[in-house]
Amino acid sequence: MLEDLKKEIYEANMCLPKYNLVTFTWGNVSAIDRDKGLVVIKPSGVDYEKMSPEDMVVVDLDGKVVEGRYKPSSDTPTHVNLYKNFSEIGGIVHTHSRWATVFAQAGRSVKAYGTTQADYFYNEIPCTRDMTEAEIKSDYEYNTGNVIIEAFQNLNPVYVPAVIVKNHGPFTWGKDAGEAVHNAVVLEEVAMMAWNTEVLTEHSVKSMPQELMEKHFMRKHGANAYYGQ
Amino acid sequence: MLEDLKKEIYEANMCLPKYNLVTFTWGNVSAIDRDKGLVVIKPSGVDYEKMSPEDMVVVDLDGKVVEGRYKPSSDTPTHVNLYKNFSEIGGIVHTHSRWATVFAQAGRSVKAYGTTQADYFYNEIPCTRDMTEAEIKSDYEYNTGNVIIEAFQNLNPVYVPAVIVKNHGPFTWGKDAGEAVHNAVVLEEVAMMAWNTEVLTEHSVKSMPQELMEKHFMRKHGANAYYGQ
Amino acid sequence: MLEDLKKEIYEANMCLPKYNLVTFTWGNVSAIDRDKGLVVIKPSGVDYEKMSPEDMVVVDLDGKVVEGRYKPSSDTPTHVNLYKNFSEIGGIVHTHSRWATVFAQAGRSVKAYGTTQADYFYNEIPCTRDMTEAEIKSDYEYNTGNVIIEAFQNLNPVYVPAVIVKNHGPFTWGKDAGEAVHNAVVLEEVAMMAWNTEVLTEHSVKSMPQELMEKHFMRKHGANAYYGQ
Amino acid sequence: MLEDLKKEIYEANMCLPKYNLVTFTWGNVSAIDRDKGLVVIKPSGVDYEKMSPEDMVVVDLDGKVVEGRYKPSSDTPTHVNLYKNFSEIGGIVHTHSRWATVFAQAGRSVKAYGTTQADYFYNEIPCTRDMTEAEIKSDYEYNTGNVIIEAFQNLNPVYVPAVIVKNHGPFTWGKDAGEAVHNAVVLEEVAMMAWNTEVLTEHSVKSMPQELMEKHFMRKHGANAYYGQ
Repeated sequence: MLEDLKKEIYEANMCLPKYNLVTFTWGNVSAIDRDKGLVVIKPSGVDYEKMSPEDMVVVDLDGKVVEGRYKPSSDTPTHVNLYKNFSEIGGIVHTHSRWATVFAQAGRSVKAYGTTQADYFYNEIPCTRDMTEAEIKSDYEYNTGNVIIEAFQNLNPVYVPAVIVKNHGPFTWGKDAGEAVHNAVVLEEVAMMAWNTEVLTEHSVKSMPQELMEKHFMRKHGANAYYGQ
Repeated sequence: MLEDLKKEIYEANMCLPKYNLVTFTWGNVSAIDRDKGLVVIKPSGVDYEKMSPEDMVVVDLDGKVVEGRYKPSSDTPTHVNLYKNFSEIGGIVHTHSRWATVFAQAGRSVKAYGTTQADYFYNEIPCTRDMTEAEIKSDYEYNTGNVIIEAFQNLNPVYVPAVIVKNHGPFTWGKDAGEAVHNAVVLEEVAMMAWNTEVLTEHSVKSMPQELMEKHFMRKHGANAYYGQ
Repeated sequence: MLEDLKKEIYEANMCLPKYNLVTFTWGNVSAIDRDKGLVVIKPSGVDYEKMSPEDMVVVDLDGKVVEGRYKPSSDTPTHVNLYKNFSEIGGIVHTHSRWATVFAQAGRSVKAYGTTQADYFYNEIPCTRDMTEAEIKSDYEYNTGNVIIEAFQNLNPVYVPAVIVKNHGPFTWGKDAGEAVHNAVVLEEVAMMAWNTEVLTEHSVKSMPQELMEKHFMRKHGANAYYGQ
Repeated sequence: MLEDLKKEIYEANMCLPKYNLVTFTWGNVSAIDRDKGLVVIKPSGVDYEKMSPEDMVVVDLDGKVVEGRYKPSSDTPTHVNLYKNFSEIGGIVHTHSRWATVFAQAGRSVKAYGTTQADYFYNEIPCTRDMTEAEIKSDYEYNTGNVIIEAFQNLNPVYVPAVIVKNHGPFTWGKDAGEAVHNAVVLEEVAMMAWNTEVLTEHSVKSMPQELMEKHFMRKHGANAYYGQ
């Protein structure tokens, strides 16, 4: 079942090593078929070199396996939780990509310092709060979704398609798996540049002017978008 | 029309991923035919892997499309403005290359710390001022050219063939597109080294001695140039 | 003798340049056959490009050569000492990989800032003490093993399969040579991210919450491990 | 003439892009035939991709061209000066490799923080003084050799086969061109790690213990050397 989506997810997963976003198997991509209410996700712990489209796992919105010879990624409950709460997204990526993970380890959001970020993200990319000991000890992966959703209470996940999970790493999303991977690449670039911007200027850097941020986001994503390099 | 120049611009654009200056389509190269008053520039949003010489777009000095099946890069008004005001340049490159963009995000010029920079740039590479809200909201890309031109009121763009646009990224230029790309590579190198120089020395670094800067620039570009490694 | 283990050690050594952990010949891998009490290790100073499985050297637990046309790595006494004292390990890697060596040069342990580290290491990766002048002047390589063992007096080497040797570089280990190489790659990743975390936050970074560290280590290595991306 | 040496110098020059030490043509390698008193050096400004062994230039110890269709590197007077004053060296490399050049731009020597450096360099790698305006304006390249020689008044160039030229970049040397290239690679590695060591520890890092530095240098280069990984 869902053979086309499995192939798409397989190819999206293979983009993670291609774009240098993962070491070993430290990442996963999923997508949802909204009509059927089913999610296709990377199998758990399978090497990228040995993976094939048929290895992808199908789960329902409770995270139960519907089809697949492997177990789904251990991060599946986080993915499923996000699909249930962010109704407009179609694909999700999780990695431990280096620069985004550095921000996670420092417990910092990635502030908007330049148009590279504003072309994709409306304002800063938020960092989640510390999880409580109870949240960590029980249903840890599902609760990871909860702290992400909490961080977006006043944010539109379509306008800010990424989050930094504190002490952990990034999740990104998009209308499909391909866009989620694209945003994962962009996040890594802007995190690298934000790090170097902050260190260069000894933490006194101001974010970019608000009107410039708005111009860049809107010329690419607004009602009258005209952007294209 | 202008088939040779289209091929040249196509090849110059393909150098951007080759030299690791762009992610996805985050950059563009143009060149001008001064006799005809026409500019050839990268089409908007076309992937580098799928681009061909015939996809290049021809515009006049008002930025109007003269030939081309695609829209020109959304940065075209900036390019055209620079060609009109910097009469000696023949090619322009815009990228979001990482280290130069870090300086843009920090709102800093790239100071001259070593002979690597002095071999190509006479003194520091300036950073433009903040654009006003009015400049951002209307004719943003054309006005981007204006703040660059303003930064060169007392500078010779042939002696300093690059600029850092604040909160955005670099533009470089040269007598043709190839030289503009060459300077984009050099800018990225010297920006990387300037960043590391400044951080190593906690911002107390002095620029290189003026006479050494002059020697290196002039032994390569002066009347009696003799440089060659 | 031990032809299978020689092939395994040869291949593990060839992973060091593949994973960008060594420059020239700056690294070595060994493994032990616990039944025979024999260690197979990289020959001394042989280029990776020219090395073959037959070049591997077999030594006993006193470091004496049992078979091999080359001398064993000059670090052999350190390896042997660790095998004698860490009874559960089967393979050892030593490199001068860049980020781990930076921590060695700074005399710092690699603190636990994120789940990437907690997935592999229970708490921080310790840095050894300064060696005394006597320890350096006589039996230097064997004594290097001693200061490592001293750093693990209250640590389980199976739970923390790596160490930073002060002013020198890292050693990692595992149940076999492949796992030791895997851990060497992980160490380099987490050292890179720890460096950038500490510098970003001006040294005021706290380690990750203890309960999160425990969750991640135990969901992968504990009695009821279920982890897999 | 000197066809074997030309081939050797050609191949040594081709190692510079291979080891990622140069951008464009920013580097050169030479070697000396001590019996004939002749130096073979890279031609000026020739691209690495188009260079062949026959393009190498032969000069005498006054820097005069003896054979060659191209001009010799503009740094030839520096090379010749070093050969005349450092009688034990047989090959010289000059690059603008990134990390060594950062130290040049900061006007700093590369201190000894770890055994990676001690395996090759006895103590720190010195940085030259500022050149005077007179030294810069006349015979600049020859005088560059003079400030290097001055920095080695109390140092043995065989024990410290590299120098940082202030605001410029590194020179390295060795018994032949291959060893000089090898040392250029090592210098770049140790400079990268020294930078990261110093920044990590906010400039309060102490150099490694003297006895450890001596042990590592001597176990590899002393009378009873036994080192080999």
